[in-house]
Amino acid sequence: MKNLLIYFTFFSLIVFSQEKTTINIEKKIELFYNHSLTQGKSYDWLAHLSNQIGGRLSGSLNAERAVNWGKEELEALGLDKVWLEPVMVPKWVRGNFEYASIETTPGTIINVPICALGGSVATPANGIKAEVVEVDSFESLKNLGRENIEGKIVFYNRPMNPKLINTFLAYSQAVNQRHTGAQEAIKYGALAVIVRSMNLKNDDYPHTGSMSYGKTKLSKRIPAAAISTNGANLLSSMLKLNPKLRFFIKQNCKNYPDVLSYNVIGQINGAEFPDKIILVGGHLDSWDLGDGAHDDGAGIVQSMEVLNQFISLGIKPRHTIRVVLFMNEENGLKGARKYADNAIKNNEHHYFALESDAGGFTPRGFTFDAPDSIYSKILSWKKYFKPYMINYFGKGGGGADVGPLKKTGTVLAGLRPDAQRYFDYHHAASDTFEAINKRELEIGAATMTSLIYLVDVFGL
Amino acid sequence: MKNLLIYFTFFSLIVFSQEKTTINIEKKIELFYNHSLTQGKSYDWLAHLSNQIGGRLSGSLNAERAVNWGKEELEALGLDKVWLEPVMVPKWVRGNFEYASIETTPGTIINVPICALGGSVATPANGIKAEVVEVDSFESLKNLGRENIEGKIVFYNRPMNPKLINTFLAYSQAVNQRHTGAQEAIKYGALAVIVRSMNLKNDDYPHTGSMSYGKTKLSKRIPAAAISTNGANLLSSMLKLNPKLRFFIKQNCKNYPDVLSYNVIGQINGAEFPDKIILVGGHLDSWDLGDGAHDDGAGIVQSMEVLNQFISLGIKPRHTIRVVLFMNEENGLKGARKYADNAIKNNEHHYFALESDAGGFTPRGFTFDAPDSIYSKILSWKKYFKPYMINYFGKGGGGADVGPLKKTGTVLAGLRPDAQRYFDYHHAASDTFEAINKRELEIGAATMTSLIYLVDVFGL
Repeated sequence: MKNLLIYFTFFSLIVFSQEKTTINIEKKIELFYNHSLTQGKSYDWLAHLSNQIGGRLSGSLNAERAVNWGKEELEALGLDKVWLEPVMVPKWVRGNFEYASIETTPGTIINVPICALGGSVATPANGIKAEVVEVDSFESLKNLGRENIEGKIVFYNRPMNPKLINTFLAYSQAVNQRHTGAQEAIKYGALAVIVRSMNLKNDDYPHTGSMSYGKTKLSKRIPAAAISTNGANLLSSMLKLNPKLRFFIKQNCKNYPDVLSYNVIGQINGAEFPDKIILVGGHLDSWDLGDGAHDDGAGIVQSMEVLNQFISLGIKPRHTIRVVLFMNEENGLKGARKYADNAIKNNEHHYFALESDAGGFTPRGFTFDAPDSIYSKILSWKKYFKPYMINYFGKGGGGADVGPLKKTGTVLAGLRPDAQRYFDYHHAASDTFEAINKRELEIGAATMTSLIYLVDVFGL
Repeated sequence: MKNLLIYFTFFSLIVFSQEKTTINIEKKIELFYNHSLTQGKSYDWLAHLSNQIGGRLSGSLNAERAVNWGKEELEALGLDKVWLEPVMVPKWVRGNFEYASIETTPGTIINVPICALGGSVATPANGIKAEVVEVDSFESLKNLGRENIEGKIVFYNRPMNPKLINTFLAYSQAVNQRHTGAQEAIKYGALAVIVRSMNLKNDDYPHTGSMSYGKTKLSKRIPAAAISTNGANLLSSMLKLNPKLRFFIKQNCKNYPDVLSYNVIGQINGAEFPDKIILVGGHLDSWDLGDGAHDDGAGIVQSMEVLNQFISLGIKPRHTIRVVLFMNEENGLKGARKYADNAIKNNEHHYFALESDAGGFTPRGFTFDAPDSIYSKILSWKKYFKPYMINYFGKGGGGADVGPLKKTGTVLAGLRPDAQRYFDYHHAASDTFEAINKRELEIGAATMTSLIYLVDVFGL
């Protein structure tokens, strides 16, 4: 008996060390790319999520449909376990109208494309018509002071910096206007805020996104809306001609009490280390204007595809591989927080977590949030990605949804697709399935599977 | 006097070596990217070329318009010299109809999208209706033999290989069906050929492109057309159900005698080495179905932008920097051949030639056709491109238009943009300005300027 055990241990060590030879790893990774590009499910899944369900803002009927769909599709894969994790999420509804116009002289108007920011209050039933103060920062706002702002509409018009190759950095440098613009303008007696869309392209799409009133009490809150970049450019040039022009805005969005929703979770149990969890995920909710194909339908179907590849290719992972379709990334992050809270409560060991939430474009690599020793080890895997033109491995965050796991010591990673087109679509009606290229999406999925596989085989 | 000369020589050496410090080079390259992304002309130029001129097949009125436009725009830049180089080019005209259908049973037809291949002859006035033989290679054709092919339409249906990350390789492995399919099928008595479009996506666009009858005499030539990938898939599956179905095709394209056209050329004279020419270019002609925005409007405006940057930023090059807008790449390469012939005849020294003809997508790097010693030197410049996510430097050809300069010993280079979407648009009605992202195009232009600048400053 003992000899037999030694024999099997020895045999499995040989098998395992053969498995880990460079050439076998290379072959496996080639298999992931070939499979994704010829038999992957990601594109068809995304077609359904985008075209049959559509935009799926937290708390909406479509979000509920997406939860059911995600659960059914994961169950159909034959995972070891699929379940829903309950979480209360905000419910904000856009309402049935939102529009705005520039009144150059009384009776002469030009309509401009706007959309309410997520979380904004409505205007009064008859809308708001007032003069406009254009600013590029909270400092300008402060310098202008209450005497120049009270009773007016504040127009935040600082563009995203086109010089930055990293468009996410350009976003992060501009987005405080959208997120905090209203609460700042309230301090000086503004009636409403309109914010230049977070878009590097000049076009007619207003881009929504989350905003916060901070601690401003309910009765003091003012409406907040995004204006398209073309609209912002027009308004700005007309203000130069006539600083006294008036802007009209009307919207009837509304906040409701929180409602019950779910993170959708599925896993393949690890053969050697079932208690060590390698997580892959994205967010299932999206904004309501488009169908959320890039943000973050792509990340959802790519994450699901990782598990599909393990199963379809008959690879039994050493660690538990878990996919999480997080709810409510866009306007609350309630799903991600609940997930991390429960992970801590249940003493779960999250070994590694990879997020895809930067669009379904050609992948360029990953960012990693890891201690140096682990990061060095990960860097040694870069060679495996070279045939697939994946050559960016950098330090950086994993993403909003895996972020809350950082406090548990999880190594975090984020897929980094090419980012030049992302903000053309982000949070706008243009974020639709048509903007997805099948191959780019599939190469992203294979890139994710490859990384997850390497973590599973070599460990961290 | 002599001391003064020594002083100036010494002084200019200091200036020059300062110029070449890594930090100064880095700053200059940053300037190119910033300029291209904020003040570049490439996008506006392409808007005009695509939307105001449109598709510009060699020998067409639009091609003549494009020549005039190119010359005027280069003159407006204030180059040292702008001129036209005459070249005779083929003239093929699509005609005013082309259509096809599958006749499943007599009287029951399904229309499928086709387009004549460039250079094809017309069908008889009433079209051709015949049975179809589907093949995947010339070998299959040979194996079937005359007894199975005579009097039928040959349908080439070998898809581009989706597993290849390098989509240009997939193209090169499939394109013989389009290029040589007709002359091969003629050997076995086929009446016409239809070729699966060179497209990795399943959609309804037929993709045209050049074909050749080789030495087949005029009277023996048969019509050749491309069918959309969806059309090809449909036809293939219907053939499985009914191998006797008939296919109808009708087109009235026509070849005319060659006509006069031009390469458009402009240059900035080199301050130190006016006789050493650094060339940058693309092709001005395009297929007729779309507006040729990616193929190769992008390469044209990026090449023009390189010279615009030198002038706008006040950089006096050491070598002569020349832009060439080649005519007739698509169906003859007459412009490129004439250009190289004249270069040899005039004893011009082409030091380096960079081509952009792979679409206006996010640039990933370059391929180089250079001796090892020069290639090593070029590789040492890779570091300058890192901040811009340009990390692919490989060995490979420069492109079809700079190719003929190889025999003069010119070092060749080709811009390599991300290639996943290229064949969605290539030679199809979908290759339009709307498929261009401004930033991707501009980053490509800056990447080209940076390489040209490095060649100019460091030499090869």
